[in-house]
Amino acid sequence: MIKIATLGPENSYSHILSQKISEDNNKIILCKTLNEVFEKVDNDKNIEGVVPIENLIHGSVRECLLGLLKYGVYITESYDFNIYHCLAAKGDKFNSIVSHPQALAQCSDFLKNFREQNLIETTSTSEAMNLAKKDSSLAAIGSIDSAKNEELKILYKNIGNNKHNITRFIRIKKNFENNDIKNEKTSLIILPKEDRPGLLFEILSIFKIKDINLTKIESIPTGEKIGEYLFYLEIEGSCNQLNLKQSFDFLSTLVDVKILGSYNVKKIDQ
Amino acid sequence: MIKIATLGPENSYSHILSQKISEDNNKIILCKTLNEVFEKVDNDKNIEGVVPIENLIHGSVRECLLGLLKYGVYITESYDFNIYHCLAAKGDKFNSIVSHPQALAQCSDFLKNFREQNLIETTSTSEAMNLAKKDSSLAAIGSIDSAKNEELKILYKNIGNNKHNITRFIRIKKNFENNDIKNEKTSLIILPKEDRPGLLFEILSIFKIKDINLTKIESIPTGEKIGEYLFYLEIEGSCNQLNLKQSFDFLSTLVDVKILGSYNVKKIDQ
Repeated sequence: MIKIATLGPENSYSHILSQKISEDNNKIILCKTLNEVFEKVDNDKNIEGVVPIENLIHGSVRECLLGLLKYGVYITESYDFNIYHCLAAKGDKFNSIVSHPQALAQCSDFLKNFREQNLIETTSTSEAMNLAKKDSSLAAIGSIDSAKNEELKILYKNIGNNKHNITRFIRIKKNFENNDIKNEKTSLIILPKEDRPGLLFEILSIFKIKDINLTKIESIPTGEKIGEYLFYLEIEGSCNQLNLKQSFDFLSTLVDVKILGSYNVKKIDQ
Repeated sequence: MIKIATLGPENSYSHILSQKISEDNNKIILCKTLNEVFEKVDNDKNIEGVVPIENLIHGSVRECLLGLLKYGVYITESYDFNIYHCLAAKGDKFNSIVSHPQALAQCSDFLKNFREQNLIETTSTSEAMNLAKKDSSLAAIGSIDSAKNEELKILYKNIGNNKHNITRFIRIKKNFENNDIKNEKTSLIILPKEDRPGLLFEILSIFKIKDINLTKIESIPTGEKIGEYLFYLEIEGSCNQLNLKQSFDFLSTLVDVKILGSYNVKKIDQ
């Protein structure tokens, strides 16, 4: 039986998505950190992980990119998950609004209507909902599911500044399996053996020659020395395609390459 | 008189660095968000800003990159600021350790020695120190300066997993001034007019032809549509150098370019 490890607390966006894709809450293991998710997947081939890799507004989730580098795990699927914030409370009257600083920032336009209320920061949107359940003077910002789970009244729906706030999650597992030539995307990490001018240009030349389209590139600090970077890349196509295979072979003569998997992108609605 | 706007609360790493470089605490304006810092600098030429752009472990600060794009402000200087975490409390005995989740994560190796104590998350390291001042059963993780400011006893110094944890800050101002041909680095944002295969390759070709070395590249989601990106680049040299000027001129025939400034990198020790 496959279990899914993901980032808690209960009713976090990671947890909600994991419930949607597994359709069985008993199989979900809630972890305290992203690193813990990676560890569990790396240690047990019966555990898969669901982790956020990129938010449309805030960009890449660095801990996830470093986890993909550090652990022997591979991407098998990706999900574009719509994030809808709502305001919820026990009743209609409240003095303060509580939420995670990022959620408060994502709803700043909406919050201009509540200048008389205090804003109080919490460490997660789930914690905010939980506080609002205990104290009727508080309204919380978070997901509709977590509001429902805490039995709160939803006062306003879809209150984010950006109506299309999406977080991309990936599903990871221990073993690399990719027999499908039709997968949409391939992710890889490139580790330069030396830092010299023009290296990135040469890497991109190889993809250009083989007519491969890049959809994302990011230089990631190694965390060892400032100015020392790895490259995280997403390219179109499956790693079973001939032109991708040939590129990777040639690329490995120049730099170290870790293929993170080929996968499709599914849209999941909250 | 030039004032410095930076991210609070009091004794945040941004605040501590701003004190070090301005040597006059009266001139510092503490803001609640990075966006507020950018707004203040954009609206008043007598206010300069000090904002974090990259952490050695956590990578780029996305809000800062988007602020550089959105506001009419320019980079005049950059600072590599050493971050040293310490554990501080009123006395030697405590039951719980409090701090921001990122600081707790950065000290996870040290915390293995304190398995019997609870870990409690706060919204900032300054808040943690403030709580420890009020409650002697708590020890807080944060900067040495903030421990001293709250008159706490420093129990352990430099407790981070990575002994060289550096955050890079930039200084921004309203007017673009760069008469110095000797500045080490130039930052720019590139806005593609269309998304097509090979575009990034062409951009890098131009720098390659003119023998310009890239030190950082990052595709930044525009926040409008998933898969739509801008590029943030750092290159070696001053934008007054002939080869850089010529590259930018040619580049602008292909894509929109915003030069963010040329500047030196200074090392600042906590």
